[in-house]
Amino acid sequence: MTELWNVWYSELHEGLSGFTVKIDRVVESLQSDFQRIDILETKDFGRLLVLYGSLMAADRDNNAYNEMITHVPLFTHPNPKRALIIGGGDCGALTEILKHPEVQECVMCEIDKMVVEVSKKYFPYLTTGADDPRAKLVFQDGKEYIVNGKDKFDVIMLDLSDPVGPAEELFQEPFYRNVYNRLNDDGILVAQSESPFFNQRSVKGIYANLKAVFPSVHMYTCFMPIYPSAYWSFAFCSKKYHPIKDFDRARWDRLKLKTRYYNADIHTAAFALPEFVKELFR
Amino acid sequence: MTELWNVWYSELHEGLSGFTVKIDRVVESLQSDFQRIDILETKDFGRLLVLYGSLMAADRDNNAYNEMITHVPLFTHPNPKRALIIGGGDCGALTEILKHPEVQECVMCEIDKMVVEVSKKYFPYLTTGADDPRAKLVFQDGKEYIVNGKDKFDVIMLDLSDPVGPAEELFQEPFYRNVYNRLNDDGILVAQSESPFFNQRSVKGIYANLKAVFPSVHMYTCFMPIYPSAYWSFAFCSKKYHPIKDFDRARWDRLKLKTRYYNADIHTAAFALPEFVKELFR
Repeated sequence: MTELWNVWYSELHEGLSGFTVKIDRVVESLQSDFQRIDILETKDFGRLLVLYGSLMAADRDNNAYNEMITHVPLFTHPNPKRALIIGGGDCGALTEILKHPEVQECVMCEIDKMVVEVSKKYFPYLTTGADDPRAKLVFQDGKEYIVNGKDKFDVIMLDLSDPVGPAEELFQEPFYRNVYNRLNDDGILVAQSESPFFNQRSVKGIYANLKAVFPSVHMYTCFMPIYPSAYWSFAFCSKKYHPIKDFDRARWDRLKLKTRYYNADIHTAAFALPEFVKELFR
Repeated sequence: MTELWNVWYSELHEGLSGFTVKIDRVVESLQSDFQRIDILETKDFGRLLVLYGSLMAADRDNNAYNEMITHVPLFTHPNPKRALIIGGGDCGALTEILKHPEVQECVMCEIDKMVVEVSKKYFPYLTTGADDPRAKLVFQDGKEYIVNGKDKFDVIMLDLSDPVGPAEELFQEPFYRNVYNRLNDDGILVAQSESPFFNQRSVKGIYANLKAVFPSVHMYTCFMPIYPSAYWSFAFCSKKYHPIKDFDRARWDRLKLKTRYYNADIHTAAFALPEFVKELFR
């Protein structure tokens, strides 16, 4: 039978270029208190989670983002007992963190409860961490949680949407200073830091702000097919540890985690930056 | 004034997902003896060269492909005097190779003379190598050149289009065996080996064929924004040298080449493969 359904999801950089994928079916479209949420079915990438018009997760995304934002700091910190995720509503990062037996508690502070509910329904394998007794879900504005709380963490991850609109403040120096204060003296922050290919102005700003607060800031990158330009970056920020010199390769070997992207060689290689990326910091 | 021109170039993987970019102007469309050739003007990526419906080069592609297919073997081989490119019509690889003063001759065997002419006209900075006295351009079928010639090379690069249609034979074991015979006893072959994300079946086949011929085969990858999935791979095949152990970092430091992607850290890091890629070889 001739295929007559011809619906596409396209996500463009400044309206000019980007990623496009054929949609088989719009599974569900919702409006939460904070944003529009779409679940789309595709042949090439499986199910998609779209928040605020941005593609967040897909069945066949190879999981690079979630593995890289979590395992890089957790295998660097020698004893990561308490972890905090700001954002991270699809629970992918939470699930990865709780694969580490050293972690005794992982707080996830997500503003939008509906994202967690939708993810549990449509991406059950991504959200298994939410049912772990060590997971503590808090539905609150991340900025308020950081500013008003007192207890400290070994590792904090900023798993945020793009620095436009409501999330913008969470990429500024005052917020980073408050995050710094919620970290133990040997704490590590990892922040998603946008595409070094498409979002060069944002990237420069984020790193200038982080370097004003943290003594040690290193960019690392991964291939992430569903994110803009498919090339994504993270900022590793620490008070004490070096992401390569202090990488505990023996612990990685011992744990034998099943991953789709991360491994010991990738941990180190991810910090090698092409010249056009280094150029952003000159 | 309202923008009413709304033309897009889209390149899809199996018709289901891919890259799309807004076109400002179709600069020229030609038909050579071998293929359709299009030059398109875009805001986001500058000028594009499209061969046979596949995007080959762009002004703002950061040059990862050309630098990675050439500098990785050339900084590994201790004395690369004679180099051969099969394909490579846009002359980008040729231009990179001739930045190495050790290279005394570089033969480029391209089947389609019109691609070279069009590239000289529209991408002059990419083709400067073609005017170097050490460059020798041969317009002939690459398979015939390999099979019928006798003289040997230190480094051969297979800078080919996708393994469908006329180029298919150039990804098969008999051809690789002939290439092996055109290499000196310490020679290196580098072949573009498709996207490990989209073209998994092709990738498996290419590596099985190469491993049947070469004693040492290593995959390395780069971020290449305009190629399918933006994640591209190369096969480093050698009779003697190891791409990391024999990497001549001192020569790279001494030459001070101006690159946009390649550097010494990237040379090594490019060989670290994510789990989903390693999976292809298990």
